[in-house]
Amino acid sequence: MNPAPTPRTQVRRIARNASYDTGLLHAIVDAAHLCHVAFGDAHGSHCIPTACWRVGEHLYIHGSNGSRMLKQLMKQDCCVTITHLDGLVLARAAFNHSMNYRSAMIYGRFELVDEAGKRAALEAFMEHLAPGRQAQVRPGNAQEYAATTVMRIALAEAACKVRSGPPNDDEEDMQLAVWAGVLPLGQARGAPLPDARCSVPAPDHARAWQDGAPGC
Amino acid sequence: MNPAPTPRTQVRRIARNASYDTGLLHAIVDAAHLCHVAFGDAHGSHCIPTACWRVGEHLYIHGSNGSRMLKQLMKQDCCVTITHLDGLVLARAAFNHSMNYRSAMIYGRFELVDEAGKRAALEAFMEHLAPGRQAQVRPGNAQEYAATTVMRIALAEAACKVRSGPPNDDEEDMQLAVWAGVLPLGQARGAPLPDARCSVPAPDHARAWQDGAPGC
Repeated sequence: MNPAPTPRTQVRRIARNASYDTGLLHAIVDAAHLCHVAFGDAHGSHCIPTACWRVGEHLYIHGSNGSRMLKQLMKQDCCVTITHLDGLVLARAAFNHSMNYRSAMIYGRFELVDEAGKRAALEAFMEHLAPGRQAQVRPGNAQEYAATTVMRIALAEAACKVRSGPPNDDEEDMQLAVWAGVLPLGQARGAPLPDARCSVPAPDHARAWQDGAPGC
Repeated sequence: MNPAPTPRTQVRRIARNASYDTGLLHAIVDAAHLCHVAFGDAHGSHCIPTACWRVGEHLYIHGSNGSRMLKQLMKQDCCVTITHLDGLVLARAAFNHSMNYRSAMIYGRFELVDEAGKRAALEAFMEHLAPGRQAQVRPGNAQEYAATTVMRIALAEAACKVRSGPPNDDEEDMQLAVWAGVLPLGQARGAPLPDARCSVPAPDHARAWQDGAPGC
């Protein structure tokens, strides 16, 4: 069931582009490798980019135990935002230019993932980055796991906002001799670059990397 | 001259990747179409994606006069972050996986751009989106300009962080039979999509769109 908007997730600006659909939220999170996290401390507001991944109804992040951000996120609510830019929208009038995008904002409090859950969470992260790779690499040892903090936030209080499609010009501008349309943007994937000291053949996730490019 | 780090911009985590170089900061801002802005209000912290562009030593944003964010940004310091993800870094050990990226964090207070400066700022925005287009479109009228707020923040208190290159594995892992390297990520540009009701030939900025793709 899709959650109802809260005072923090009720979209006011161009509300027709808002959505509280859980399937859309999952798709936006799953298409991302990183999010931006907003929180405050004695120095004011901070906006930190960090890797993220989803397991079920939670978004996960990780970092070093000493991370200032992770310490703060245990003590306060925050806002996690993911944005995919899909194109520049060129209208006939300067004022009606826009961008196509898919964004998600998630509000709430991160919780610490305990030792029992940490391994499964980090293995899910690897599966998100490079399917099948976990079984190929040297797994984390006790010291490495102990140095790593994993946290998660529920995807319960969230709003998505999506703009897609052509420009919306005013009717009186439609006859102007101005080119109008969309300049699409997407994610490009380049050919895998093996490490200079690597003589091992590329595994499936490296060979399939470019085939899976989302493109435009 | 490059600014010295402040308590807000002194990078502590993996400080070897930090830079306070103004040229790098400009390049990271100029490669972006959007930033994420962190600020607080009675509901807590917010992280809002918004379009941005640079003129000289300032980053500009714009929006409707009624925007909650723009009203808040006149009253408080904030943090503006831009992140470009350049690749997934696959190491021989799970723990040494990383990402290549270029990020910039800018701290300070936005200031309102006055009516005299607003037109030049919005024309610079158009030039950033689509060079040469301003002279082709129906320009803003008095009512449209009056409905639009433009704000700018100095690029004075800022830090960049960049990771590039191959994985950094521990020496004792180098002999493992594990593929290691980088899976490059970049920005893809798709073929321009003319509006259904547009019969005007594509202008230079649309025809050259894909040639200028940053790629990987």
